[in-house]
Amino acid sequence: MTETRVERKERTRRAILDAALHLCEDSSLVALSLRQVAKEVGIVPTAFYRHFESIEALGLALVDESFVSLRAMLRDVRRGEGAAGGFADIVDSSVSILVEHVHQQRQHFRFIARERAAGPPSVREAIRHEIELCERELATDLARLPGTEEWSSDDLRVLSNLIVTAMVATAEAILINARRPDVEKQLAENARTQLRMVLIGALQWRSKP
Amino acid sequence: MTETRVERKERTRRAILDAALHLCEDSSLVALSLRQVAKEVGIVPTAFYRHFESIEALGLALVDESFVSLRAMLRDVRRGEGAAGGFADIVDSSVSILVEHVHQQRQHFRFIARERAAGPPSVREAIRHEIELCERELATDLARLPGTEEWSSDDLRVLSNLIVTAMVATAEAILINARRPDVEKQLAENARTQLRMVLIGALQWRSKP
Repeated sequence: MTETRVERKERTRRAILDAALHLCEDSSLVALSLRQVAKEVGIVPTAFYRHFESIEALGLALVDESFVSLRAMLRDVRRGEGAAGGFADIVDSSVSILVEHVHQQRQHFRFIARERAAGPPSVREAIRHEIELCERELATDLARLPGTEEWSSDDLRVLSNLIVTAMVATAEAILINARRPDVEKQLAENARTQLRMVLIGALQWRSKP
Repeated sequence: MTETRVERKERTRRAILDAALHLCEDSSLVALSLRQVAKEVGIVPTAFYRHFESIEALGLALVDESFVSLRAMLRDVRRGEGAAGGFADIVDSSVSILVEHVHQQRQHFRFIARERAAGPPSVREAIRHEIELCERELATDLARLPGTEEWSSDDLRVLSNLIVTAMVATAEAILINARRPDVEKQLAENARTQLRMVLIGALQWRSKP
């Protein structure tokens, strides 16, 4: 069967995204040139513009893709919450889901970890915005936990920010220790302990009136 | 008074370090060339080698410098602990000291935040090592807090890692919101709440026997 024009265009777009993920693995989008990407994909540099208007726009598309996967992960965690009993179960399954998604989407997680700190300003800003959205969604979930009824919305956001920060750090540590299953197991165990410590603190917490 | 040879050499070294901090502000050491640094300082490229054997070695010197300042900060926090009464006071003064040091050493903190994620492998590794040392020192301090006598050393490290992660995230958020004192005030307040939540959780914590 011959490929349609639309399919071919989509395939080239995918090849450009993958080439960018691959090429900036050891530095950053900031150091990536359109020419390098085109060469890796096997297209002429001007053909790049049929898909993205700049390296920055390509970076923003990668941020979108990465967070589609992250949001899918968060939905999985939320489904787990609905099903599970005690909060120790929720914690255990959340960390397992995080570890699994980091494995499945290693290149995207590495891209986010790196560009969050060192990407072009618009890409850094887009990543911050997406992480903030995750924090807001988690705050909404936390508001449904028994014991947080009297909490201020500020305190829910602050707790949610702490949990997201700890999980981002865990994901980054797992990426750094790729191919070291013993270290990864320990990191996952530490993340579970941290979440439990935080939630035990939260259950004792009373917002200022 | 004429400058001695040693003084002149030290001045050039300082100029190279400052030029690197300045030049890689919007990208990373990875994208920095020795030629750029030499041009900024006003020396010939070969003169660079009298001070550093590579851009990477220059990066490692900047990591050292940055953590000298961070360790000074941690010593200040520790002195505060000795003096202060309740743990709410320790939390408040620790966060204030962090905010103050980020202001004083803005370029160094930005360098660490960026190179931690996107720097050359040896520089990333050196930063991880220094952060781990901070975590160890904090774990030793936490072991002296009333209530942690029965904790396992693993749990002390896990708690210490959570606190350091939260403080690194706070420092990074303050850097991003430079020149927005209202946001910074809120970030500092959030960091205080997070530390209190974590320590309240910790005081309820019992290590597995």
